[in-house]
Amino acid sequence: MNAQIEAQYEETLDPEEWESMRVLGHRILDDAMDYLETLRDRPVWQHAPPQVKAHFEGPPPPEPEPAEEVYHEYLRYILPYQFGNSHPRFWGWVAGPGTVMGMFAELLAASTDAISGSFSYLSNNYVELQVLDWCKDLLGYPPDAGGLITSGCSASNLIGLSVARNAMAGFDVRSRGMYNAPQQMTLYCSEEAHSSIQKAVELLGFGNDALRRIPVNESLQIDLAALKAAIENDRANGLLPICIVGCAGTTNTAAIDDLNALADICAEEKCWFHVDGACGAWTAIAPRYRHLVAGMERADSLAFDLHKWMYLQYPIGCVLIRNAEEQRRAFSLSTTYLAHGEGDRGLTGIDVPWLSDYGFELSRGFCALKAWMTIKEHGTARYGRLIQQNIDQAHYLARLIEAAPELELALPVSLNIVNFRYTRPDLDDAMLDGLNKQIETELQERGIAVTSTVTLRDRKFLHVGIANHRSRWEDFDLLVREVIRIGNELAGSGA
Amino acid sequence: MNAQIEAQYEETLDPEEWESMRVLGHRILDDAMDYLETLRDRPVWQHAPPQVKAHFEGPPPPEPEPAEEVYHEYLRYILPYQFGNSHPRFWGWVAGPGTVMGMFAELLAASTDAISGSFSYLSNNYVELQVLDWCKDLLGYPPDAGGLITSGCSASNLIGLSVARNAMAGFDVRSRGMYNAPQQMTLYCSEEAHSSIQKAVELLGFGNDALRRIPVNESLQIDLAALKAAIENDRANGLLPICIVGCAGTTNTAAIDDLNALADICAEEKCWFHVDGACGAWTAIAPRYRHLVAGMERADSLAFDLHKWMYLQYPIGCVLIRNAEEQRRAFSLSTTYLAHGEGDRGLTGIDVPWLSDYGFELSRGFCALKAWMTIKEHGTARYGRLIQQNIDQAHYLARLIEAAPELELALPVSLNIVNFRYTRPDLDDAMLDGLNKQIETELQERGIAVTSTVTLRDRKFLHVGIANHRSRWEDFDLLVREVIRIGNELAGSGA
Ligand SMILES: Cc1ncc(COP(=O)(O)O)c(C=O)c1O
Ligand SMILES: Cc1ncc(COP(=O)(O)O)c(C=O)c1O
Repeated sequence: MNAQIEAQYEETLDPEEWESMRVLGHRILDDAMDYLETLRDRPVWQHAPPQVKAHFEGPPPPEPEPAEEVYHEYLRYILPYQFGNSHPRFWGWVAGPGTVMGMFAELLAASTDAISGSFSYLSNNYVELQVLDWCKDLLGYPPDAGGLITSGCSASNLIGLSVARNAMAGFDVRSRGMYNAPQQMTLYCSEEAHSSIQKAVELLGFGNDALRRIPVNESLQIDLAALKAAIENDRANGLLPICIVGCAGTTNTAAIDDLNALADICAEEKCWFHVDGACGAWTAIAPRYRHLVAGMERADSLAFDLHKWMYLQYPIGCVLIRNAEEQRRAFSLSTTYLAHGEGDRGLTGIDVPWLSDYGFELSRGFCALKAWMTIKEHGTARYGRLIQQNIDQAHYLARLIEAAPELELALPVSLNIVNFRYTRPDLDDAMLDGLNKQIETELQERGIAVTSTVTLRDRKFLHVGIANHRSRWEDFDLLVREVIRIGNELAGSGA
Repeated sequence: MNAQIEAQYEETLDPEEWESMRVLGHRILDDAMDYLETLRDRPVWQHAPPQVKAHFEGPPPPEPEPAEEVYHEYLRYILPYQFGNSHPRFWGWVAGPGTVMGMFAELLAASTDAISGSFSYLSNNYVELQVLDWCKDLLGYPPDAGGLITSGCSASNLIGLSVARNAMAGFDVRSRGMYNAPQQMTLYCSEEAHSSIQKAVELLGFGNDALRRIPVNESLQIDLAALKAAIENDRANGLLPICIVGCAGTTNTAAIDDLNALADICAEEKCWFHVDGACGAWTAIAPRYRHLVAGMERADSLAFDLHKWMYLQYPIGCVLIRNAEEQRRAFSLSTTYLAHGEGDRGLTGIDVPWLSDYGFELSRGFCALKAWMTIKEHGTARYGRLIQQNIDQAHYLARLIEAAPELELALPVSLNIVNFRYTRPDLDDAMLDGLNKQIETELQERGIAVTSTVTLRDRKFLHVGIANHRSRWEDFDLLVREVIRIGNELAGSGA
């Protein structure tokens, strides 16, 4: 081996020629700006044909391919066949469209291969902590609360519920494990809660059976009497209720539970109060609508996203934990290779808390940067107006639907989600289900708009979730027009 | 409210003036290219002074700030004070330095706000699945194995161990939870295993007590006899051994357990075999060194990173699971709002498996793109030579250390990590510990090189982990020279 070392070849992944790589970079940037500037003229979505799928088969390439050609493959096979969420008429699932500054921030983070959340005297940590401070400020949390930027609300729910578990279990669950719990613990959420709550409950070892799905009222909010009865019943059976999960905007209908009532029940019942605000938390900054999420600020843990209603690029979510020390106790570990907190110099000095002690990830990217730069660029007042605009747009769309005899609104709009269907008196529900699914498909395949369908009270409805800063009022006019046109077309042709 | 809707204001986060934003983008790109091209002339690291920290205090800005000024703040307060991992002389923790193509890919992913892992007929999913296929191919896994791109090896270990738990528990752990397990389950790893294993074990509800830390031999590999004795002992006590975690490169010393022996023991003991290859898995593609990780391909689950030895930008990790169906069974859920798999059209048609059914995240970014583009650009043969080069560099550094009377190598080099210390016959171990910590600090604060320190056999050593495609042989000459110079300087001045 030593003989071979003597050769001292030196290889690197850096460009052989910086200049041509720079030219490619500028071309990519121009193309990206063109793409965004002309987004409205493009189809929302294009179905990737089989030859595109086939292009991504085959073994890893042993030999290099010129950078320009790699980019050319991107342009031809990848760019056109994406989700469509940056487009003004994407509303199928609540999803942010991204921002130009967010794109620059991702470029910057990648240029230094930035990390965040561990090590000392790093600007990155300050940025992430400031973004957390801003979230606390905007969402009504005390400045000394804990928190973490995450990959999304699934991770946020997982972290929130794991702090809940460890804080409420009444024994050293980190050391001893759930098998040695003195009692079976139980958790509560509405039937409308998101599947990521179940995933977290299962991952944490509670078992899905321990998650009580409480029925909902007419407005699809958790039924408080049923909740109290379930807790009482579990206690009577020797179980330990530890946590109530409130929804600030459900996935199906953006229903918001009575969060103040849930906070009161948690206080009485000595339960942890977790709120899943993936879709609705940012209602708190919309001047005319913030009352809708009153009580959310009383949650012990609040999970939410910034890649939905803060309009930022995927991935970025967040969790806030009222008691930072409980968060640290759930995750912090000491190791020799990550020893820190001595002295005031070097990468392991005393500085700010290492966020890797507050979650399950160690290495973490710098996705806080896109939040920091975009919030700076626009200011929170504009953000508040935009959230408001999206809610107003939902009400506007609902009015258009109510005015159209061919359309039926599933239920009154509570926030930024509208569910409706195309109807005809001569078609039964099963036929209408099929027809509305077909309308969804046609809207997508023709590139007009992306909606999804959801099932509510056993019927399929078109689902429009508005978390898009590019949508204009006229886009909703167009949607209504096209749904009616396609519905007539399909129904007329014997659907 | 309706009256207010009439106003129909239309606000957006898109630029008011596209042209000036485009100019800013080109400037950012040029600066980033300059930065990377001149990296070698810069200090590896700069300590952020208190005024930088102070800059990131204060409430969220209500009003907009011009985009150029936001970037100016980035240049002034953020750029200079980062981790340093892109620099040729960063070796403090095993960390990739990023690639130029990786930066372009992040820009591209952000330009369309790309997601990956759910929905149908999307190129993004094909790209991610191809990257997984490449990983399987390169690391010796069968093409039908499961897997997932993750945020890092912590998440990969968590996913691997949760599939292990659910597959081996012997009851329906997802529904019933750990409290209802028929027996206490136990897991095994060496004393040198990474803390993320403990974090995963705790999160999953096993309890840290259930994780048996098996002693290591002289080479810091798991002691096989002690492992077998521990399993036998646990069984005799009515416990259920379910999983052995092998290390393919420990954090402290890059020790590689005898993976074939562990695979044999797992087969005999009917245990799940999980390998943590965060640091060492990619040894498998280095022609002259791949024998070091023989047996790794026999693991039921293999966790590793691409933001370490594949040199890519944070975050990107991966987990491979031999039995894809077990992975799906651990995570898949059905919901109305994510119903899919009917028909061959639209975003919810039948296409490829949705990766969100194979892990705990739902929304996921498109970090597979940077892997796909960079691997294409360079080809796997060059990658293999680079991994090899890093290992050769570790051996080269070790030889330099052995040739220097002031330096002492902690133990023979096993892979890409070198631990050594500055010594003087007149100083005892406690003094040498302090002195070497000071040397680490000076190297960092003077911007010469980033090393860390670790404690091995109760002594502090400088720690050099080489996963850097920019490091040259001369960088190690310089390191040795500077450690001796600074050591002499500090010791001479009475350290
Ligand atoms: C109510 C709710 N909670 C949680 C999530 C999960 O969020 P993410 O996809 O960011 O992980 C979603 C996602 O759609 C959601 O709608
Ligand atoms: C051996 C080992 N396993 C797991 C991890 C965790 O990986 P990540 O930081 O990517 O989450 C590390 C990180 O340093 C490691 O060294």
